[in-house]
Amino acid sequence: MASASGMFDAERVAVVGATDREGSIGAAILRNLLADFDGDVLPVNPNVERVFGRPCHDGIEETDADLAIVVVPAEVVLEVVEDAGKAGLENLVIITAGFGESGDDGTTREAELKALAEKYDLDIVGPNSLGIISTSSGLNATFAPRNAISGRMSFMSQSGALVTAILEWAGDRNLGFKDVVSLGNKAVLDEVDFVETWGDDPDTDVVLGYLEGIESGTEFVETARAVTRQTPVVVLKSGRTEAGARAASSHTGAIAGSEAAYKAGLEKAGVLRAQSTEELFDFGTMLAGGPPPETDGVAVVTNAGGPGVLATDSVGDSELTLTAFDDETKRRLRGVLPSTASVHNPVDVLGDASADRFGDALEVVLSDPEVGSAIVIACPSAVLSFDRLAGAIVECRAETNVPFAVCLMGGSSIDAAAETLSSAGIPTYFDPARAVRSLDALRSYRSIRDRVDHPPATFDVDREAARAILERVESKRDNRLGVEAMGLLDAYGIPTPVGEIVDSPAEATAAAERIGGDVVMKIVSPDILHKTDIGGVEVGVSLDEVADTYETLVSRAYNYQPDARLFGVQVQELVDLADGVETIVGMNRDPQFGPLLLFGLGGVFVEIFDDTTVRLAPVTEREARDMLNDVDSAPLLRGARGSPPVDEAGIVETIQRLSQLVTDFPAIVELDINPLVATPDGVVAVDIRLTVDPEIL
Amino acid sequence: MASASGMFDAERVAVVGATDREGSIGAAILRNLLADFDGDVLPVNPNVERVFGRPCHDGIEETDADLAIVVVPAEVVLEVVEDAGKAGLENLVIITAGFGESGDDGTTREAELKALAEKYDLDIVGPNSLGIISTSSGLNATFAPRNAISGRMSFMSQSGALVTAILEWAGDRNLGFKDVVSLGNKAVLDEVDFVETWGDDPDTDVVLGYLEGIESGTEFVETARAVTRQTPVVVLKSGRTEAGARAASSHTGAIAGSEAAYKAGLEKAGVLRAQSTEELFDFGTMLAGGPPPETDGVAVVTNAGGPGVLATDSVGDSELTLTAFDDETKRRLRGVLPSTASVHNPVDVLGDASADRFGDALEVVLSDPEVGSAIVIACPSAVLSFDRLAGAIVECRAETNVPFAVCLMGGSSIDAAAETLSSAGIPTYFDPARAVRSLDALRSYRSIRDRVDHPPATFDVDREAARAILERVESKRDNRLGVEAMGLLDAYGIPTPVGEIVDSPAEATAAAERIGGDVVMKIVSPDILHKTDIGGVEVGVSLDEVADTYETLVSRAYNYQPDARLFGVQVQELVDLADGVETIVGMNRDPQFGPLLLFGLGGVFVEIFDDTTVRLAPVTEREARDMLNDVDSAPLLRGARGSPPVDEAGIVETIQRLSQLVTDFPAIVELDINPLVATPDGVVAVDIRLTVDPEIL
Repeated sequence: MASASGMFDAERVAVVGATDREGSIGAAILRNLLADFDGDVLPVNPNVERVFGRPCHDGIEETDADLAIVVVPAEVVLEVVEDAGKAGLENLVIITAGFGESGDDGTTREAELKALAEKYDLDIVGPNSLGIISTSSGLNATFAPRNAISGRMSFMSQSGALVTAILEWAGDRNLGFKDVVSLGNKAVLDEVDFVETWGDDPDTDVVLGYLEGIESGTEFVETARAVTRQTPVVVLKSGRTEAGARAASSHTGAIAGSEAAYKAGLEKAGVLRAQSTEELFDFGTMLAGGPPPETDGVAVVTNAGGPGVLATDSVGDSELTLTAFDDETKRRLRGVLPSTASVHNPVDVLGDASADRFGDALEVVLSDPEVGSAIVIACPSAVLSFDRLAGAIVECRAETNVPFAVCLMGGSSIDAAAETLSSAGIPTYFDPARAVRSLDALRSYRSIRDRVDHPPATFDVDREAARAILERVESKRDNRLGVEAMGLLDAYGIPTPVGEIVDSPAEATAAAERIGGDVVMKIVSPDILHKTDIGGVEVGVSLDEVADTYETLVSRAYNYQPDARLFGVQVQELVDLADGVETIVGMNRDPQFGPLLLFGLGGVFVEIFDDTTVRLAPVTEREARDMLNDVDSAPLLRGARGSPPVDEAGIVETIQRLSQLVTDFPAIVELDINPLVATPDGVVAVDIRLTVDPEIL
Repeated sequence: MASASGMFDAERVAVVGATDREGSIGAAILRNLLADFDGDVLPVNPNVERVFGRPCHDGIEETDADLAIVVVPAEVVLEVVEDAGKAGLENLVIITAGFGESGDDGTTREAELKALAEKYDLDIVGPNSLGIISTSSGLNATFAPRNAISGRMSFMSQSGALVTAILEWAGDRNLGFKDVVSLGNKAVLDEVDFVETWGDDPDTDVVLGYLEGIESGTEFVETARAVTRQTPVVVLKSGRTEAGARAASSHTGAIAGSEAAYKAGLEKAGVLRAQSTEELFDFGTMLAGGPPPETDGVAVVTNAGGPGVLATDSVGDSELTLTAFDDETKRRLRGVLPSTASVHNPVDVLGDASADRFGDALEVVLSDPEVGSAIVIACPSAVLSFDRLAGAIVECRAETNVPFAVCLMGGSSIDAAAETLSSAGIPTYFDPARAVRSLDALRSYRSIRDRVDHPPATFDVDREAARAILERVESKRDNRLGVEAMGLLDAYGIPTPVGEIVDSPAEATAAAERIGGDVVMKIVSPDILHKTDIGGVEVGVSLDEVADTYETLVSRAYNYQPDARLFGVQVQELVDLADGVETIVGMNRDPQFGPLLLFGLGGVFVEIFDDTTVRLAPVTEREARDMLNDVDSAPLLRGARGSPPVDEAGIVETIQRLSQLVTDFPAIVELDINPLVATPDGVVAVDIRLTVDPEIL
């Protein structure tokens, strides 16, 4: 697997296509490199002698570079790459555009580039990249007007322009980076490589990404899931909405995957999601600032009631809770605050509070065992020095692991204080809502970091029987054959109605007698897909009607399609839907992320409320149980309407068994058990819909 | 009704409690006033000769002030107010704290203040206010460290500290105000007065408010509803969540009303809602910038694909739509853009675009008839001058009414351009998501401004019969008497099941025969509230069981409570719930906003999904219809599950008739028709639950 660490650790950087022509990209990159880089800068251009006063090399093979930045015209890029490969130079950043993003010729050129990378085992960023930055060595191999300041966030972006924008914006806000990469077309290195590289990097505290798509969902999930145990990863994924996805795919030429799959994939990977650029860096700054809170309780300390209420509203919107202080905390607050101040949460230190009073109150609430994080809100007042307040907060910070967010609700008078706090790793905001959302992201990271992974259960199944059934599917069409498809479920231990296939009226009656009660009868034929449409199914057939119904079904099938192969009639137990809750358990195979399991309550809950949840397969028992809890209609499984609770364990097991089935057989493209009827005594899969791709088997 | 315009138009301002003592509030106010005010500043303080070199008056009656700012200690405030009243001075701003917000003494003092205001017909801001600002005359009668810059937004705030914070923050962002008021305790003037005043003010283009509560919901709705036809109003209401509401009420001492009532009230008032301080001013700036878009179509012009996709995602989240350009627009775009640029929406003018190319593309998309608004997104590049871009955008702006938002995605290099745009009334943002949300708020204002008000329908009802029924309720308890309560619905023309009250088994049988089919039988007694609990209700009684059931019900009632008054047995048509859709139509009376009507589909939809909607009564037919459309389960009324559509008009009429009933009788505190069964042939109110306050009748 490709790795990207060599890029950022480079000591000798060649710029192929070096020039000092004003306004050119080559000159811009060279100027950026020459400004701060601790290592050697090696211009390469056979047509000129010197660039910016430095001697030029004729070819890359003449240098001892360990990284090449390629800015030659698209037509000669492949040549340069081949030269690099032959010379044993492994790391390249291709700035040049005119590849996959620009029509057929470009697509061919990109394919050739990939082939060269494989041939010579090259790590390549781009093509069509703005470049890379590593602040630890002062490496700025981009043509952005502004360099990154040093810090502990690493950022990758599928949009080069966004890198330029963020570098300016973040610089003004004193937000620092370890590494930055503009991913470009991701022909070779992609988000998986950088997540892995930065996961191993002791100087990166948080990985941030702007992504329009993920090339290999499965690989990304596997890598990020491991990395996020130590290093938080936040992604702003664009193309979330239908309109956005269309815009993204016309922009990159790639097909954007389904939002449901990205949601499930990023969740499984333990990746936090930001909804805007602002939020991406709000979260990033908070996550780079220190460890997550140990409890969900938050304390608010403010010199203004109104903003305290706004913060409380935002806490109400989040999964944080406003701590109810214990008596000791209240007693100690009374000791440091005037009698008219509030010692309840939010703590109002009053409009005439000095920095010292703020500091005292903060110190007290931080010692409450239920307080996991704190928000300080300061509005300008005649007696409050923002600078001294920053000092007091930094002092408290030194003595605790509890994370804070600080709202300095002022204009330029807060700038120095904000810088002091930011240097101490404490993020500042104007708006309390943003402070709370950022703390909430940090809280989410706690459960990601601490999650315990159990392997998915492996049930004892009849894999060969299942394979035999799937092999009967000859063409790639929607397959509704009741009997065969139900056999898959039988092979994987998912309960189905009792039933038999018979080939005479007498046998049908005997079967119905054995089953007991009214039955369902269905014609069995591989040639009749939509059995209900031709009257091939009869529900609620009583014992004395069974023989006649057999004849009716066969004659309907014959009338409909005289040459259809008839394998008989299925006589099946009638599952009374009124006795239980109808659920749906299904699977859809996503091109990026693989099998996506779906669960929901049937009927109106799926059709009208779209009340479903998805997970990537294979799921653990815990994940399967979470799916039940996820849906809003879950209380109906637990006897919400006076009926007895259904067999939830049966549903959970069915989800896991289905997960095993679709993981074992990639040929199953789509599968819906609809309904899976759940009663207090168990579950039963009443109907199944299946799409198989026989070419994969 | 009190008015606040005199405050802002004052020409001679007395400061009662004037002092030049450093660090005092009096000195801070005086200094602010002396700095910029076009009128006269008149210090009042009997204990000193001169303040800041100006002669001091001994008492307010010695001045010819038309506005007094009161900063004397709380104990002497009432005296000052009485003096002002006697002297005919009508406008006061009371800065002094120590009133309703601070315990019993303060509450008494505030009540006395109100009484004085009434006696002398005084307009008073505060007490416990930070003061007021009117930039048109340079009046800054606050003790905030920073003055407002001049502009066309007027802002009221229930938090004084937030005023201080916003003045600093907005000043740094070049956001200007016409008037600003810190409402303080709202003893006399409140949000209603300022909405009205600013609604009449030709120099206020948008009214912004931070509110923790609304004193008189009904008055606010009436006033704001009229004002919002000409002037947009945006409110950040805190205490939205349960935790926030608790914090707000402990902060202000007032009881925060229910969020559902505020939601319905603000919606009826045509008031837009912001969710954070940032959003309040994002929306304010956009609304002050010009008229709303004429269509929902938005065009995005960007020099960077990624941010264009982010903007498109946000459009997908909003009620705006990305315009599909017509052929003429695409043809003209091809004329002004390089061949590799996208002429679809979002328009990518490419990374090498100059300000001119941006301007040309913008001009073209603005001429597309489907484009109602536009977003320009510019990332830094070597060839783009932000200043020239701002010039090009301002030029386009001059030739069109189409509103724009501009995202300048850079750091301090954008400052000059942002100021140019802001001076031309064009708001700028970094984050595309904020630009889109702000344009969406402007779009919402179009439908508020253009709404057509029809009066609520008045149905021909038997008001006297209803009154007679309500008069039978003697005590303030939950009243479930089927017969009487159902009579209310009969009187107001809401269909109820056919039924009669009988007092013998033979009559019961005769009644059941007239009704036809199985019936429901209920004991009728004002002394038995929970009839089902004692077996006082029998459902599905067949004709031959009716006589026996009569005896059974009477003997059960007698056994349960021998002294209960028995008025007979009700024999009622059995409404088969399976034939229709169960809905709930209800009313809850809110202390601030009055009767709040609720609609939802019964059973799980209300109990589990909380899928309900509320409106303030009285509702128009349009509003009643909107209630049906609001709920997610609405498709079930329209035959979503294969059943025929129900009588929606019958539900709409029932909501309106209930609206009339609860508007006519304030004694009805709570009323639920549950279920109102809707079938294709009509609706019928099967059960009713009612709480009456007989003291109001």
